[in-house]
Amino acid sequence: MNDFADRDDDKMKDAQLAEVGDDDDIYGEDGSIRQDFLTAIGAAIADRDVLFLRDHVIPLHESELGDLLESINASQRQALVKLLGADFDFAALTEVDEAIRLEIIDAMPNEQIAQALGDLDSDDAVYILEDLDEEDQAEILAQLPFTERVRLRRSLDYPEDTAGRRMQTEFVAVPPFWTVGQTIDYMRNEENLPDSFSQIFVIDPTFKLLGSVNLDRILRTRRKARIEEIMDDSRYPIPAEMDQEEAAQVFEQYDLLSAAVVDENDRLVGVLTIDDVVDVIHEEADEDIKRMGGVGDEELSDNVMSTVRSRFAWLLINLGTAILASAVISLFDATISQMVALAVLMPIVASMGGNAGTQTMTVTVRALATKDLDIYNAGRIIRREAAVGVINGVIFAVIIGVVAGFWFASPGLGTVIAAAMIINMLAAALAGILLPLLLDKVGADPAISSAVFVTTVTDVIGFFAFLGMAGLWLAHL
Amino acid sequence: MNDFADRDDDKMKDAQLAEVGDDDDIYGEDGSIRQDFLTAIGAAIADRDVLFLRDHVIPLHESELGDLLESINASQRQALVKLLGADFDFAALTEVDEAIRLEIIDAMPNEQIAQALGDLDSDDAVYILEDLDEEDQAEILAQLPFTERVRLRRSLDYPEDTAGRRMQTEFVAVPPFWTVGQTIDYMRNEENLPDSFSQIFVIDPTFKLLGSVNLDRILRTRRKARIEEIMDDSRYPIPAEMDQEEAAQVFEQYDLLSAAVVDENDRLVGVLTIDDVVDVIHEEADEDIKRMGGVGDEELSDNVMSTVRSRFAWLLINLGTAILASAVISLFDATISQMVALAVLMPIVASMGGNAGTQTMTVTVRALATKDLDIYNAGRIIRREAAVGVINGVIFAVIIGVVAGFWFASPGLGTVIAAAMIINMLAAALAGILLPLLLDKVGADPAISSAVFVTTVTDVIGFFAFLGMAGLWLAHL
Repeated sequence: MNDFADRDDDKMKDAQLAEVGDDDDIYGEDGSIRQDFLTAIGAAIADRDVLFLRDHVIPLHESELGDLLESINASQRQALVKLLGADFDFAALTEVDEAIRLEIIDAMPNEQIAQALGDLDSDDAVYILEDLDEEDQAEILAQLPFTERVRLRRSLDYPEDTAGRRMQTEFVAVPPFWTVGQTIDYMRNEENLPDSFSQIFVIDPTFKLLGSVNLDRILRTRRKARIEEIMDDSRYPIPAEMDQEEAAQVFEQYDLLSAAVVDENDRLVGVLTIDDVVDVIHEEADEDIKRMGGVGDEELSDNVMSTVRSRFAWLLINLGTAILASAVISLFDATISQMVALAVLMPIVASMGGNAGTQTMTVTVRALATKDLDIYNAGRIIRREAAVGVINGVIFAVIIGVVAGFWFASPGLGTVIAAAMIINMLAAALAGILLPLLLDKVGADPAISSAVFVTTVTDVIGFFAFLGMAGLWLAHL
Repeated sequence: MNDFADRDDDKMKDAQLAEVGDDDDIYGEDGSIRQDFLTAIGAAIADRDVLFLRDHVIPLHESELGDLLESINASQRQALVKLLGADFDFAALTEVDEAIRLEIIDAMPNEQIAQALGDLDSDDAVYILEDLDEEDQAEILAQLPFTERVRLRRSLDYPEDTAGRRMQTEFVAVPPFWTVGQTIDYMRNEENLPDSFSQIFVIDPTFKLLGSVNLDRILRTRRKARIEEIMDDSRYPIPAEMDQEEAAQVFEQYDLLSAAVVDENDRLVGVLTIDDVVDVIHEEADEDIKRMGGVGDEELSDNVMSTVRSRFAWLLINLGTAILASAVISLFDATISQMVALAVLMPIVASMGGNAGTQTMTVTVRALATKDLDIYNAGRIIRREAAVGVINGVIFAVIIGVVAGFWFASPGLGTVIAAAMIINMLAAALAGILLPLLLDKVGADPAISSAVFVTTVTDVIGFFAFLGMAGLWLAHL
């Protein structure tokens, strides 16, 4: 292959790119990667034009390279990674969907992966390693230098979704008796520091955590001062076994930029940084939204069959509850055949109850997730929801009562649907708050299971109240 | 009032507290504030025991004090703030619900508010000021020192939810020709530095932003080096007018801890920090979840009437669509009176479509919010959703066809509902992805408006397909 072939062609690609103006920004107005940039990269990949790719891909931030990888097709991805070789920024793999990450990794020899991981921060390396199967993991780890291997192994030994798994094992730690001057000199001379950091830790000879100092504090203090005089000892160390979501809440509550991660003996084993915590916050919000929508842990890159599978269980449960609601209706088939208008109106009662219940449930599930709802305000919120249910129930009872009364020229039918509406809106409010609280209490995730229970309650009570009262009314007509 | 009255009583309160063990942590196992702590604080407020309150409330972190304020009742809050006087940490007001914040502020003379705001970082002061009415704002600002006033005014002049409104106007900025040593000496001698910071900015004499330097970089560099040699010039300055959500995305993409905020002339006007960005990320996720659940911008502290109002519009829209679905059913009232089983089964078709549509919609709305869905993958995702809809449609058609066929001993009825199921599941998939994409395209928020459109589509098509085909089948029987 001749890298220098067709430099004119390169100029053409450059010219195409330049036309759009600001060459620094690969994103267009709508936030996705510019079409001309993708075209030029695609052409360069097809031409095996390594020089052009080096010029335009190497300067990208890892997250930009991640977006690029997600915007081209699988064969282009493989080719791009191969063409860049050692220049491919492995950190970009932490920015793409799991499916794409595995696709790229699987096509790579383990030796190359080991070499690339060696250059990453330990948290990024672990992020990539953890998705691989045991065998590949072991083979890659075996090819890393001893200290590196021990560090990664230690992170991987902590369970998934814990602070220990997310932490970075590179940090700066100094003894308490050092002076500020000594500390600064150490940082000036030491080659092996983390890529970036915002605080240093203070430890005793056994690595027990004594405190921490923010860098701005060091910069504001005279060289002669001792570290122990300026260190902060209440910096909320995070146990390595702590769930990452809990760790994120500590960060949020105390506005931390980074925090020490300690083992069961209070020894410093790593540092958790806010950028990882931001990812956790995002993942958790994502999870809650998806669970409430009944789509579990789906990713956008999932293929048809895994999507079908991920949604099947939820739809099957819903089918069960829908059949249950139908069974309730079938109890009243004689009533319906007496007055078909009931069949026309009954979905309204169920639907309004379902929506009101979803509203209350959304507020409740969210408040539980953010820990805004606790034993001190639960009573007040339950009373409020019941009151809101009754008030909205009465308002909508009047509206639908009048509409139905005129529609079917039957004030009696209007009265029946109005009464059913009030009952179902109250039931919806109570189900919407009590069911998530109960699920939370017994340790189930209210986000994933509330919706189906709440709509079952509102369907069953809605049909039962409306058709039951209609039957009584028709019997006494 | 005698502060020293009843010190025995204090010891009793302390003893109560001590019993529970770790006195440093005011939170219990479940993450809410410990009951004994609240009891002791409540008793101290009732006793007007300022000394006890000072001992136990002043050491709290602002977010802990915020939680405490949210866990006691309104009159206790007022009393606590009064008893603490100048010792009350105003920053705690940034950690409570808007309703509680306004309740506390409203009870305070403007002079006291002005004095307290003077001690806060500008972003916290603005956060508190922005909710007050124009008149109070002006009166409070008038009592602040000139520079303070100008700073806060400048932030308040930027529109709500922009980077300018969220920024902190305290920052460290140095000229490019300074050496690292000069910069460190400046920070050691200057009294008026921000409370904490992780980078400093480099500006020209007109305050034009030239670059930035992370503190760890300064600490690793020899004193003689010039700032311009080590400064980073691609640190993603944020225009003050930029929407906070967009700013948060920049932070996330490039893993920033802080970023310069610049005005339209590229002049440095403030700094946006990751802790504020974390709050924005939370607010936005919260907003998305609540909008999808039909509860707008509700807060947990809202009272009954404002909650009724906030939910009314959504329920009214839903009533309209439910009546529309009923109108579709009423087209087939003759068919239903011919076979009541149709009324029993028809909610199943609508409900399955509604749920399948919600699944697709959740994935779509979320992917739009996180910008994972764009013109490059929209086609693939639309095809995937259609395929998933058809496959799940066929699976559930078989299940419900068999169930209904046996239930009503009518293979014909089973066939009709099975066919309707496939049609409605496909319609649900297409509505679930195309409607949010369309809403996004025309500039509407897909989170707030998709659900109602999607379920309208699945209700109408579900009833139409099932009852229509049933009518044809019965006519040819």
